[in-house]
Amino acid sequence: MTEIWGKKTFCLITGGSQGIGREIAKQFAEKLFPGSIMVLSARSVEGLKGTSSLINQVAPEISVELFPYDMSIPKEQDFSNLLKKFSPNDFDLFLLVHNAATEGSGLPIKECSDPEKWNAYMATNLHSMASLTSAFLKAFKHEDKIIVINITSLAAIQVIAGLGEYGVGKAAREMYMKVLSSESPLLRVLSYSPGPVDTSMVERVIDKVANNETKSTFVKMRDEVTLLKPHETVKKLVDLISVGLPPYSRIDYYD
Amino acid sequence: MTEIWGKKTFCLITGGSQGIGREIAKQFAEKLFPGSIMVLSARSVEGLKGTSSLINQVAPEISVELFPYDMSIPKEQDFSNLLKKFSPNDFDLFLLVHNAATEGSGLPIKECSDPEKWNAYMATNLHSMASLTSAFLKAFKHEDKIIVINITSLAAIQVIAGLGEYGVGKAAREMYMKVLSSESPLLRVLSYSPGPVDTSMVERVIDKVANNETKSTFVKMRDEVTLLKPHETVKKLVDLISVGLPPYSRIDYYD
Repeated sequence: MTEIWGKKTFCLITGGSQGIGREIAKQFAEKLFPGSIMVLSARSVEGLKGTSSLINQVAPEISVELFPYDMSIPKEQDFSNLLKKFSPNDFDLFLLVHNAATEGSGLPIKECSDPEKWNAYMATNLHSMASLTSAFLKAFKHEDKIIVINITSLAAIQVIAGLGEYGVGKAAREMYMKVLSSESPLLRVLSYSPGPVDTSMVERVIDKVANNETKSTFVKMRDEVTLLKPHETVKKLVDLISVGLPPYSRIDYYD
Repeated sequence: MTEIWGKKTFCLITGGSQGIGREIAKQFAEKLFPGSIMVLSARSVEGLKGTSSLINQVAPEISVELFPYDMSIPKEQDFSNLLKKFSPNDFDLFLLVHNAATEGSGLPIKECSDPEKWNAYMATNLHSMASLTSAFLKAFKHEDKIIVINITSLAAIQVIAGLGEYGVGKAAREMYMKVLSSESPLLRVLSYSPGPVDTSMVERVIDKVANNETKSTFVKMRDEVTLLKPHETVKKLVDLISVGLPPYSRIDYYD
């Protein structure tokens, strides 16, 4: 249990303003060793402040830093600049959680015809993640002390009609993680699929998705209250980390 | 045998200037019904002309049209403009072969840190393919008469260290094809993995790839002449088409 949580940690979470990201921030903060630092990124400053307040309540000994950022227009230098303020020697563990994601247009994939929109989608969901990972590894160097967590989805390995961009993006991210782990075997890399979770993304999917079957599935899960609560799925993630992580794993909430 | 090849066909092949693409053009042209049209795309006008001459020799009854194009800066309108010159009523079958690809930087994926380079890579290998597919389906409408072939790679499903961008791009393309097939079940969609083939890409990989193990593997395959010849792997593709295609399949040369 203490192997991971008992260390002074630098933790960076993207998509930290709401939903699963906020819950990860909260539950990780409760576990992290006093003196650890948590950096939260998202577009919404208000949302980030809300998460920060929550952390201050549950874990006042954790320092929080906010990094408001739009992942759809990522720049390598922005990530380097953010991280160069921290010294690798000040921490015993480095935790990078790629949680930021967008759900895509909801259109059938054959109607996703504009290369510029694909660029924007993949910049938000793949290119920014890759660039931030690079900057993180460069900044903190000791790969045996670095854990990279990729929040993924069933859509990465199984088609969800109407969520094509989302599936393509998540499949690309999972392959990125596999390659990263293979090339950098000292890292611990986890792709965690949280299951269908009660967040604002569900409402946006219901609102947008053109595919009736997918829409019905999400409406049914919402109305019958079978969506997971963020705290449930994040508890599973915390438990996975607590028992220790292998160099590479891909785990679903329902595994 | 005649189900597919016995029809007047509109066939578009990307990456048609050399290697596997040129061989697909040649072998398909030999099979296509007289009066069929083949459109070849690639950056190199010289290469395209070479393929065109080859087709004129082996199948003079096939009309060839060249579409020199740089897939790294795709525009939806360019694909629409290309295809609007052809009428869906003039053909009984529509064959789209996504063969164009680039091998990436050869760097470890953690050194692929520039979001702009990711954008350019994915534009060439995913976004252009998606946009061209959209334009093709919109132009020719009759999905029961359309076959989409995605030239993929083992790297889409198994890590090849040092070819991370390539693996990420191919994984993303394969998921695109799965979603497309699921949402448009009248199409026939094939992801074909041609095996390691003796093309200029092999020399470029040997030249570029930083990973010594991957470099050695490719050098060994080249020097021991165990690389497949383009005509061998394309013959397998032709045979697969000849026996008929299900709505979706993913087949490797070695399956």
